[in-house]
Amino acid sequence: MSEPSRVRGRIQRAPENFLSDADIREVAAGRRDFLRKSFLAAGAAVAGGAGVARASEGDPNILNLPEHSKILGRPVAERAYGVPSQYEQGLRRRESPGLTRVQAASVSFAPLQGLFGIITPSGLHFERHHQGWHDIDPSKHRLMINGLVKNPKVFTMDELMRLPSVSRIHFIECGANTGMEWGNVAVPTVQYTHGMLSCSEFTGVPLSVLLEECGFDKKAGKFVLAEGADGSSMTRTIPMDRALDDVLVAWGQNGEMLRPENGYPLRLVVPGVQGVSWVKWLRRIEVGDQPWATKDEAIHYIDLMPDGLHRQYTSIQECKSVITTPSGGQLLLDKGFHNISGLAWSGRGKITRVDVSTDGGRNWRTARLETPVLSKALTRFNIDWVWDGSPAILQSRAIDETGYVQPGYGQLRQVRGTRSIYHNNAIQSWKLAESGEVSNVQIL
Amino acid sequence: MSEPSRVRGRIQRAPENFLSDADIREVAAGRRDFLRKSFLAAGAAVAGGAGVARASEGDPNILNLPEHSKILGRPVAERAYGVPSQYEQGLRRRESPGLTRVQAASVSFAPLQGLFGIITPSGLHFERHHQGWHDIDPSKHRLMINGLVKNPKVFTMDELMRLPSVSRIHFIECGANTGMEWGNVAVPTVQYTHGMLSCSEFTGVPLSVLLEECGFDKKAGKFVLAEGADGSSMTRTIPMDRALDDVLVAWGQNGEMLRPENGYPLRLVVPGVQGVSWVKWLRRIEVGDQPWATKDEAIHYIDLMPDGLHRQYTSIQECKSVITTPSGGQLLLDKGFHNISGLAWSGRGKITRVDVSTDGGRNWRTARLETPVLSKALTRFNIDWVWDGSPAILQSRAIDETGYVQPGYGQLRQVRGTRSIYHNNAIQSWKLAESGEVSNVQIL
Repeated sequence: MSEPSRVRGRIQRAPENFLSDADIREVAAGRRDFLRKSFLAAGAAVAGGAGVARASEGDPNILNLPEHSKILGRPVAERAYGVPSQYEQGLRRRESPGLTRVQAASVSFAPLQGLFGIITPSGLHFERHHQGWHDIDPSKHRLMINGLVKNPKVFTMDELMRLPSVSRIHFIECGANTGMEWGNVAVPTVQYTHGMLSCSEFTGVPLSVLLEECGFDKKAGKFVLAEGADGSSMTRTIPMDRALDDVLVAWGQNGEMLRPENGYPLRLVVPGVQGVSWVKWLRRIEVGDQPWATKDEAIHYIDLMPDGLHRQYTSIQECKSVITTPSGGQLLLDKGFHNISGLAWSGRGKITRVDVSTDGGRNWRTARLETPVLSKALTRFNIDWVWDGSPAILQSRAIDETGYVQPGYGQLRQVRGTRSIYHNNAIQSWKLAESGEVSNVQIL
Repeated sequence: MSEPSRVRGRIQRAPENFLSDADIREVAAGRRDFLRKSFLAAGAAVAGGAGVARASEGDPNILNLPEHSKILGRPVAERAYGVPSQYEQGLRRRESPGLTRVQAASVSFAPLQGLFGIITPSGLHFERHHQGWHDIDPSKHRLMINGLVKNPKVFTMDELMRLPSVSRIHFIECGANTGMEWGNVAVPTVQYTHGMLSCSEFTGVPLSVLLEECGFDKKAGKFVLAEGADGSSMTRTIPMDRALDDVLVAWGQNGEMLRPENGYPLRLVVPGVQGVSWVKWLRRIEVGDQPWATKDEAIHYIDLMPDGLHRQYTSIQECKSVITTPSGGQLLLDKGFHNISGLAWSGRGKITRVDVSTDGGRNWRTARLETPVLSKALTRFNIDWVWDGSPAILQSRAIDETGYVQPGYGQLRQVRGTRSIYHNNAIQSWKLAESGEVSNVQIL
C-alpha cells in the first residue's frame, strides 16, 4: 500500500482496502487468484519444517523478518495523547462542498464505512454547526437556570461536576441525516447518506437534578428552553416530561471532556431526539409554560408534508438502519464469504431485530446483534453471506421494542411526499455489480 | 484559568480544577466563600428582570456577552480528525521516569483521575511495550496459524476482515498494575497506582473461528501460543478452553482501527486476563500440546510467594476497584456535597456490588452502578457524599458475580506476602485532610 491515503480517498474501506493499487488492478482485470497463490507460497514455507514455524527464531532470512521485528521501537509516552496510524489518514470527517453557503454553518460527516462496533471515535464524530465552533474556556463558562423557578441559579463547571453524575451510551443523529435522499439524489457513499450519526458514552448530571435544585414550578412549568453560547442564538424547546426523563447536562464524552466541536465544556444530551436539540456550548435553561417557537423550531427543522402544510416539533428519530459494509463506493475483490455489517437505532428504545436482504427485499434473513443492545444507542449487526458473483441489492430493515418496522421508500413517501428534508428513516439499498463495485440505488 | 496545563500538571482534575491559580490560592487561604459571592452576584443579575433573562437578546453589555457569542466561529472539518480542547492538555498519559532502564520498554499510565464513564479514550489508553512500538504497514502484515493444525495458513488483513466479526467492551489491565503498592511505596496519584488499566470496545474475529478454519487438532491441541511482531519476541501460552471461549483476534478499538501503540493492525484480546497475554502486533498463533514456558511466563509475570516459591500462569485479573474522584493529589475546595466516583472490574465476570466507606472501613454504603454493567468490562460507580470538613479515609470494595469480595491489604498479604509485583487487587485507601488535600495511604 504505497499511497494509502490516495487509495482510501478513492475507494472506501472494504476488506480489500489494505491491498496496493497494483493488487486492486490485478483483481479488477479478473486475476483474482493472485491472493490464493501468495497464500500457497506462504503455506509451503510453513510446512517446510519446524525450524520455520518459530518465526522469531533461527535464521531471520527464512521468513524475511520485517525491520520492526529486529529493532528497538519507539518509546512510551512519545505521544502523551495518541493519534491513529499513518496508514489511517484516509478515514476522516468530510464536508460536502457547497452544501451550505458558509463553511462555519455546515456539516461534516462521520466515515461510517470504516467504523466498527457502536462507539464513534470522538475525533470522527460528525459536526453540525449553525455559526461555527469555539474552544470555550471552561473556567469562564456558566450555566444559568431561570424562568419559572423559585431559585434562579448560575453554575460554574466546578459546581456542576460536584453533583451526582451518570454515564450512558446514546446515539445522536441530525434530523437532516439522509435528507438528500428525499429527492432521489443518491449520494455515493454511506458517509454522505448516513454520516450525520454518531454514538458516544456521555457523562453528566441529570437535568431533573438541576431543575429540582432550582425549585422549578411543577404546575406551570410545562417546557424548558435550552440555549447555546455560540453566535447562532440556538434555542430549542423541550417538553417538561422529557426534560425530567433521561436528559443530561453533559460534560463527558467517551471518557474525556467533550470535544470543542461537540460543545465543550457543556452540552445537552436528549436521548432519541434529533441532534439540534442537543444544544452545544449550553449556557442557559429556562422553564416556561408554553413552547417558544424559536427560529430553529418554527422555520427550520420542520417537515413539509404533501398537502403543503408543515409539521413542527417532530423531534424523535424513528427506527432506522443501514449496512455500512459493503456500502456505496466500496469494491468487493472476490466472490465467496463476506461479513455484512451495519448499524441500527431507534429514538424510542432498544432494537429488537434487524433483517437483511441481498435480493432487493424478496427474501430476508435475521442478523446477529452485537452486545450490548442499549436503549437509544446504536446497535451493531452482522450477518454471514456468500457472494456468488452475480448482481445483488443489499438492504437492512430494523425493528424496535415498540414493534415499529423501518419503512421502505414507497411507504415513507405515501405519508411524507418527496419534498421533505428531515426524518428520512427509509430502508437503504446498495447495488452490488458483477464487477464488485457497490453503488447507491433507491428501491421504492 | 490562565495557565491550564500548569494547573493540571500540579493538581489533578477535581471539581475545582477549572478554577484559576488565584482562585485556588483564595481557597487554600480559607476564603472559601468567594464562590458563593460570585453566584449571589450572578443571581442578582438574573433576578433583575425579564430583559436580562434572555441572555442572547437585547443589550449585550448587560451580561457582558463573551466574544464567542457574537462572532462567526471556526468551520466544520477544520480538523478532519478532531483533538481535545486546548484547556485539556494537562490530561495526558504519563511515564514514571526511571521505572525501567529503556524508555522503549516501559509504561505510560492512563489519567484515571480525569476520566468519566467506562470507555477509555484511545489517545489516553495506557501503554506497556517490551521493546518499543511500531506503526506497521497493514498491507504487509500477516497472521500465520501453524502447529497442530491440519491446514496451516497465512492471513492478510483483508482476509481476516472478511470473516465473521464481533464487537465487545472489555477492560485490559497490566498484571503489574498497582505493583508498587506491595512494598507500601504509596505513589501519589491514581494515575500511577491504577493507571495501567483501560477499557475499550474491541472488534475482531473470534480465535475459535480461525482455529476451526485451520482444522486444529481437537485431541492433542491443548494450548495455543501467541506471538507478536515487535522485537521483544513476546510469546504467551493460552489454554485451549480459553482460546475457544471469548478470545478475539482484533483490529478494531473504540470504533476505529487499533492505535499503533496498542498493536495496530492486529492484537489478541483475552478478556479477564492480564494485559501481557493480549499480544500486540499479533503475527502468529501456534497450536501445541503443552505450555511453552517462554521467558515472559517463566521468568517474568510470576508471583513470588512468602515461602520463596513462585506461581506461574496466574493470569486472571481478580475483582478490584478504586475511587478515582476524589483521589491522591486532588484538592477538595469546600465541604458539602461531593459525588464520589470510581471504577470496578473483575476478570471473572460482572460486578454485582460496590461498597464505599468514608471512615476507613468501619461503615460501608452501597454505590450506584452505571449501566451497562458488562462481563469483564470496567463498571463505573457513583455515590453521594456530604463532607463535613473533618479528616476522612475513602475506600471502595467490589464484589463480582462469583461472590468474590475484593480483599484488604491485610488479607492479601497473609496469602501473598509483600515481595510480589503482579496481581495486587487490594482495597485502595485515600486520605482526605481537613485542608481538602487527598493523599495515598495504606490501611491493613
